[in-house]
Amino acid sequence: MSNSDITMVEANPQAPLQKQWNIQPSEFSKLCSNPIRKIVDNIKKPATSSKTLIPLSLGDPTVFGNLHCPDVLVQAIVRNTRSMKHNGYIHSAGSEAARAAIAQRYGNARAPLTMDDIIIASGCSGAIEIALQGLLNPGDNILLPKPAFPLYQAICEAHKIECRFYNLKPECNWEADLDHMQSLVDENTKAILVNNPSNPCGSVYSMPHLQQILALAELNKLPIIADEIYGDMVFGSNVFYPMATLTKTVPVIAVGGLAKQFLIPGWRVGWIMVHDRNDILKDVRTAYFKLSQNILGANSLVQSAIPDLLTPIPGSAEEQSLAVFKQQYFATLEGNAKFTIDTLLRIPGLEVVVPQGAMYAMVKVQTHVLTKIKDDFDFTQKLLDEESVFVLPGQCFGMTNYFRIVFSAPHEVLEDAYTRIAQFCHRHQ
Amino acid sequence: MSNSDITMVEANPQAPLQKQWNIQPSEFSKLCSNPIRKIVDNIKKPATSSKTLIPLSLGDPTVFGNLHCPDVLVQAIVRNTRSMKHNGYIHSAGSEAARAAIAQRYGNARAPLTMDDIIIASGCSGAIEIALQGLLNPGDNILLPKPAFPLYQAICEAHKIECRFYNLKPECNWEADLDHMQSLVDENTKAILVNNPSNPCGSVYSMPHLQQILALAELNKLPIIADEIYGDMVFGSNVFYPMATLTKTVPVIAVGGLAKQFLIPGWRVGWIMVHDRNDILKDVRTAYFKLSQNILGANSLVQSAIPDLLTPIPGSAEEQSLAVFKQQYFATLEGNAKFTIDTLLRIPGLEVVVPQGAMYAMVKVQTHVLTKIKDDFDFTQKLLDEESVFVLPGQCFGMTNYFRIVFSAPHEVLEDAYTRIAQFCHRHQ
Repeated sequence: MSNSDITMVEANPQAPLQKQWNIQPSEFSKLCSNPIRKIVDNIKKPATSSKTLIPLSLGDPTVFGNLHCPDVLVQAIVRNTRSMKHNGYIHSAGSEAARAAIAQRYGNARAPLTMDDIIIASGCSGAIEIALQGLLNPGDNILLPKPAFPLYQAICEAHKIECRFYNLKPECNWEADLDHMQSLVDENTKAILVNNPSNPCGSVYSMPHLQQILALAELNKLPIIADEIYGDMVFGSNVFYPMATLTKTVPVIAVGGLAKQFLIPGWRVGWIMVHDRNDILKDVRTAYFKLSQNILGANSLVQSAIPDLLTPIPGSAEEQSLAVFKQQYFATLEGNAKFTIDTLLRIPGLEVVVPQGAMYAMVKVQTHVLTKIKDDFDFTQKLLDEESVFVLPGQCFGMTNYFRIVFSAPHEVLEDAYTRIAQFCHRHQ
Repeated sequence: MSNSDITMVEANPQAPLQKQWNIQPSEFSKLCSNPIRKIVDNIKKPATSSKTLIPLSLGDPTVFGNLHCPDVLVQAIVRNTRSMKHNGYIHSAGSEAARAAIAQRYGNARAPLTMDDIIIASGCSGAIEIALQGLLNPGDNILLPKPAFPLYQAICEAHKIECRFYNLKPECNWEADLDHMQSLVDENTKAILVNNPSNPCGSVYSMPHLQQILALAELNKLPIIADEIYGDMVFGSNVFYPMATLTKTVPVIAVGGLAKQFLIPGWRVGWIMVHDRNDILKDVRTAYFKLSQNILGANSLVQSAIPDLLTPIPGSAEEQSLAVFKQQYFATLEGNAKFTIDTLLRIPGLEVVVPQGAMYAMVKVQTHVLTKIKDDFDFTQKLLDEESVFVLPGQCFGMTNYFRIVFSAPHEVLEDAYTRIAQFCHRHQ
C-alpha cells in the first residue's frame, strides 16, 4: 500500500471502518452439553499405574469383546451389503419393511401398532430427541426421574424445556416417589418420562407400580414417554411390562432400539412407537414424521436387517439361533449381576441395590463407614488413582453418594475389579 | 361408580373439573417442513397408464440399479461386520481413524486439515444441520442460492433463521449474481452458503468466480458454508476447486459425505470440515463438536470403511480398484449428461443449461413455444399424466419455469424418457 493510498483513506470521511472478523457460535450450541462430560472431564487421569485400567464406566456391552452381536445379524448385513439393494434413500422415518417388523414385534392386542406408529431415528438418542422436540415447547416442563440417563436433561436444556425431577426411592427398588411426582405437576407440565428397565439403576418396575404411574398420568392427562431400550433385558423372575400394554387411555410414546439388545450401540438405529388408541396424539405423530425429515433418518443397511432380527420366520434356524443368542447373552448379564451383588454386599462401606435388569448397578458409598471418602466424586477419583478402576460418580445421573457400575465385562475382569474395590474400601475406612 | 359417588363429586365445590386430553405438537415441529414435499404432494399420480413410470426426479443414483458402490466398500463392510470390532460406541463426532482419513484426503498445503477439524454426522444433511445450528441464531440471516437444494431453507426455517436468496444466472452457467448477493447483506447476515457443484443446476464454478465470491465474503467478513458433496463429480475439462483452497483469510465450513461419490445415500455418513487458518472459528468448531453429542453421530460400521475409501494404500489393488470405479462411474454420468444435452437441445420449447458436474440438469420450459403449458408445475403434472415421466418442477428449488432432470438412469431408460418428452413437447406447442 502506498502512502497516497493511506492519505486517501484517511481523508475520506465516507470510508467505512474496516470490518473485523467476529464469528460467534449460536446461543443454541451454548445450551448443549453432556452432563456426564461436565463431571467426567473434571476427573483426572492417574499418572502411570502398575495396574491395568478397568473401565466399568461406559454403558457399552461390546467394549470388552466378550459379548458379540447375533450371527443372524452378521449374516443379514453381509448378504444385504453384497446385494447392493439397500444403498439408496429410504423413507425418512424408516423403510416400510423395518417399521412393519417393529410394529409386529412390539405391537399386540393390548397395545396395537401399525407401521404408521413407528418412526425410526438415528439411535435411541435420536428417537428421544424427536420424541421431546415434537411434543414440548420452550417453557414447558417435563417430569424426569432422578437418577436418570443424562441425555434427557441435555436435550431438554438445549430446547429450553424445564426439567423437573421426581425422586426414585433406592429403598424401594428405585420406584418413583408418586407423591413427589404429583407435587411437581403444574399447568406447564406436558409429559412424564419413565425409564424402565432403568439406566443407571438396573431396576425393573412391577405391574402395580407402573399402573400407579399410569393413574397419575391419567389424572393429570399427561402422556408418558417410556424409554424401554432395555425392555427385554430382565433377570430371574422379574417381568418387563411395556407401559403401553397396561393402559387403554393414557397415550404412551415408547422409545427403543437395536443398540443394547443386539449389542450394536454404534450402529445408531432406534425408534419411536406411538401408542395412541384414542387419537390423542394424532398431530404429535404427524409432527414426529415431519421431524424425521430434518436429517433423513437412520442407516438403510442396518434397517434392512431389522426384519431378520425382530420377526424371524417361526420355527426357522434363524429364530432358533436368535433365541440361543438371547438366552446366552442375558444369562451372562444375570450371572454378572448376581456376582456383582454377592461380592459388593460383602464390602463394608458399600450398599448395593439389587439390579433386576439392564446391565447397571447403583452402589451407595457409606461415607460414615468410609470416613476418608468425602463423596461419590471423591470415591471415583481415588478409586481411579489408586486401583485403576473407573466407575461413574452418581452425580452424572443427579444422585450424589452413589456410583454406577456397568457389569457387562468378563467375569474375570469383574473379579479383578471388585477385589481392587474391596481393598480400596478396606483402606479408606 | 355408585350414585353416592356422583352426588359427592357434585356436592363438593372444591372438586376440580375433570381434565380432558389435549396434547398439541410443539411449535418447533410446525416450523419443520420439506419444501419438495409441499409441492410434490400436490402432483396427482396418473390413473393407470400403459407406459412404465420413469422417475427422473429422485437425486439417488442407486435407484435404477445400474450404478453400484465400489467393491472395496463392500469388502470392507463385510470384513468389519464379521470382525465385530466396529459395533460399539465411538466418539460422537466420529472415529479418530475416519476423521483422520477425511482430513488426509481433503486437506492439503493450501487448505490444511487435521482430525480436529472434522465432525462426522448423520449424512450430509446432518452435517448441514449442525453447520447451520452451531453458527446462526434465530433472527440472523444467511445468503442462500436460488435455485437451491431445499433442505437449506427447511433447516433455517425450523430454527427461525432468515433465508435471503441470491440469484444464480442461468445465462452464465448458474454463476451467482454478485451485485444481488452484496445487496442482501446487512448487519444480521452471518454466512454465505455456496453449493458447488450444484444441485439442482449441475454447474461447476470457475476459479475466478469462486474468488469473486470469496472477495465478497472477505469484504463483509462473512464465513462461507461450502456444500461440496458433489466435489469430485465434474465432467470433461471442468475442474472442481474446493472453496477453502482459494483463500487464506475467509473461514470456510465445508460439508461433504460418502453418499453420492460412493453411491450409498441411504447409509447416512457425512461430515463438516472446518477450514480456519486464523482461528476465527475456534468457538464455532467447539460448538459443532458439542452439537454432535445430541444424537451421537453416524453409524460406526460405515465409518470403519472410510479409511479404505478415502486413503487406500498407494499402489495397492484397492487404490487401483477405486480408481477404476470412479473412472467408470463418472464416465457414465458424463455420457448421460452429454446424451441429455444433445437430445433435449433438439426439442423445441426446451432450453437446457449444459451441466458441468453432479448428476442434474435444469431445463427451461419456453412457455411461449409450449403454449399449452402454463408453467413448470403444469409441465411436470401433464408430463406425468401423459407420458409417465416424472421430473421435479423448478418450484421445488425456488425457480419457476424450469424442471430438474436426474440423469443417472441407464442410457436406454433416458432414451425412452427423452423420446416421450419430445413427443409431449411436440403435442403441446
